[in-house]
Amino acid sequence: LEEDWTHVLQYTPIPGEKDLMQAIIDYLKKDDIHIGPDNIMITTSGQHGLDLVGRLFLDPQDAIAIDLPTFGGALAAFELEDAQYVVKAIEEDGTDVKGLEAEIKNYSDTKKKKPKFIYVVPDFQNPSGITTSLEKRLALLELAKKYEIPVVEDSPYRELRYRGEHLPSIYSLDKNQGHVIGLYTFSKILCPGIRVGFNIGPPEVVKKFAFIKGANILNTPKLNQNICRTFLQEYDLDTHFQKTRHYYSEKLNFFLEALEDNFPEDMGVKWTKPEGGLFLWITVPEEINTLDLFYMAIDEKVAFVPGEIFYPEGFKKYNSMRINFSFPTKEEIVEGVKRLSSVIQKYQSKKKT
Amino acid sequence: LEEDWTHVLQYTPIPGEKDLMQAIIDYLKKDDIHIGPDNIMITTSGQHGLDLVGRLFLDPQDAIAIDLPTFGGALAAFELEDAQYVVKAIEEDGTDVKGLEAEIKNYSDTKKKKPKFIYVVPDFQNPSGITTSLEKRLALLELAKKYEIPVVEDSPYRELRYRGEHLPSIYSLDKNQGHVIGLYTFSKILCPGIRVGFNIGPPEVVKKFAFIKGANILNTPKLNQNICRTFLQEYDLDTHFQKTRHYYSEKLNFFLEALEDNFPEDMGVKWTKPEGGLFLWITVPEEINTLDLFYMAIDEKVAFVPGEIFYPEGFKKYNSMRINFSFPTKEEIVEGVKRLSSVIQKYQSKKKT
Repeated sequence: LEEDWTHVLQYTPIPGEKDLMQAIIDYLKKDDIHIGPDNIMITTSGQHGLDLVGRLFLDPQDAIAIDLPTFGGALAAFELEDAQYVVKAIEEDGTDVKGLEAEIKNYSDTKKKKPKFIYVVPDFQNPSGITTSLEKRLALLELAKKYEIPVVEDSPYRELRYRGEHLPSIYSLDKNQGHVIGLYTFSKILCPGIRVGFNIGPPEVVKKFAFIKGANILNTPKLNQNICRTFLQEYDLDTHFQKTRHYYSEKLNFFLEALEDNFPEDMGVKWTKPEGGLFLWITVPEEINTLDLFYMAIDEKVAFVPGEIFYPEGFKKYNSMRINFSFPTKEEIVEGVKRLSSVIQKYQSKKKT
Repeated sequence: LEEDWTHVLQYTPIPGEKDLMQAIIDYLKKDDIHIGPDNIMITTSGQHGLDLVGRLFLDPQDAIAIDLPTFGGALAAFELEDAQYVVKAIEEDGTDVKGLEAEIKNYSDTKKKKPKFIYVVPDFQNPSGITTSLEKRLALLELAKKYEIPVVEDSPYRELRYRGEHLPSIYSLDKNQGHVIGLYTFSKILCPGIRVGFNIGPPEVVKKFAFIKGANILNTPKLNQNICRTFLQEYDLDTHFQKTRHYYSEKLNFFLEALEDNFPEDMGVKWTKPEGGLFLWITVPEEINTLDLFYMAIDEKVAFVPGEIFYPEGFKKYNSMRINFSFPTKEEIVEGVKRLSSVIQKYQSKKKT
């Protein structure tokens, strides 16, 4: 034990612990992803995984193709590299692949260089909760091949499906052929505080991640990697995920019911109906600025994330909000949505006067 | 307990846990540094601390003033930002402050912009083991004030002094007036695998570190921060450091003796005599390339780090090596130095034929 403890406290290889990598290889097999250790870079959180992607692919003024809205943490990481954006509004069944292709083509023709990658969250997207259909996943992969730019597929919520059919990841559709870089984290399947995740991709990309990681944090704490390995290998994951799904799924249902009850059609409020994940997205009439609404709602002890942080600078929209339905209790959900509705009505009547 | 465990696994504030910050504030008081929580950014390792510094201060083609040689990990972090260098060879009593000032002046006159900061490791520098004198610490601080560029003072080995007088840090000499950014890590005082460190500096700089950290790794694992806090608050640190110092100090003495015994003056081999830390620096005659020597030495099961990685591109020197004297046993030190001597002799006689 003494020796174990001593080992846990030493430096570990930059790409990660071999036994955690093996546990990840086995774990991903169930999701039809078949890879080796050369395809894996252990990261110190999903955010770190995004940072590695940004630093590897982006020189200043390089562009990325994204959905609107998209994950604010990804935008924050890419902003550090002065990213530009090629954008297209997300649709009810995910990325508007045809629309995004037109934007990519237009950008490439104008700028004489391609966007460096396509960033997507196909499963229960943060912030919208939208899932990208199988047809569109295949289309995204074709787009990546045609333009020779990788898809960066961020999959933090993949295990959290509450209804509908489990869809193959774009990484699995590509059969590890190098057109996709997959981003994973233990934050949502184990716990956020562990700060461990992993990027998967072609060995030449993983090697470059290692070079950057060596200079930016050196290695991921072994103690935390060991906890993740134990979790993957010794926990009954099926039961664990079943429980988690049941718990969140109930909350989502309460939320959707409360929205139906409190937002009559003539209020012009719309919301997504996620099949999984942690978030749903509410769009309010255009005259409502959710940044202003936020401060009014806080006074009523109701919180949401104003939607504008999920749009990059230059593409901002102000009439939407992200709801995390996983935290509040049923009672808090019912009461919270009721208050949100009354705050919106108050905002609108104030505007009119 | 259940609740404690749950809390440990959640997200924590980006700048770090309040109670760890308080423990650090108390710990640094003993070293005559008097700061508040606003002066502290918890990092996910010393390397991460360097990365934050590089990302905050450096735009592409910006320069840094450094000693030659200097810590390779710092160079690696700054390379990610395409750093340029203003350099001056380190002297026996530390940074050649006058020489470096001349270089800074010359650079500023030519480029019409200043280097962004001065990076130094004043205590038992990695790789040379050299300590910067009090006089030169004061001179570095004056230099920072005169040119209005901060000193980045990297202090990973400060607790590891085996002889000579403890010198005040440049940060303490500045009395928290904002001319110095201090970099610390738990790697050398607790254990490398913990991956926790901290940067200290003026609140406006710490705020910018938080912005970058939020986008590059979000937060430092709470579990690891808790271990560090427990270490600072509940360990008998005096006894711990005394033991550590005794242990390393003996090894350093074995090493210095072995070098005396095995490198007669006419071999032209020189070495530093560190007052602390983990490293010493050996300079061999100019005709010896320590990269080549490294492979010969490995065959004899002797390892060192070839010195060239401690020089940035364009300033490389190839006739030096860094020795980490903290790992091998006494027997391994004696045998290792003997073999190193014979490998050097073999290299030289090979060159002559």
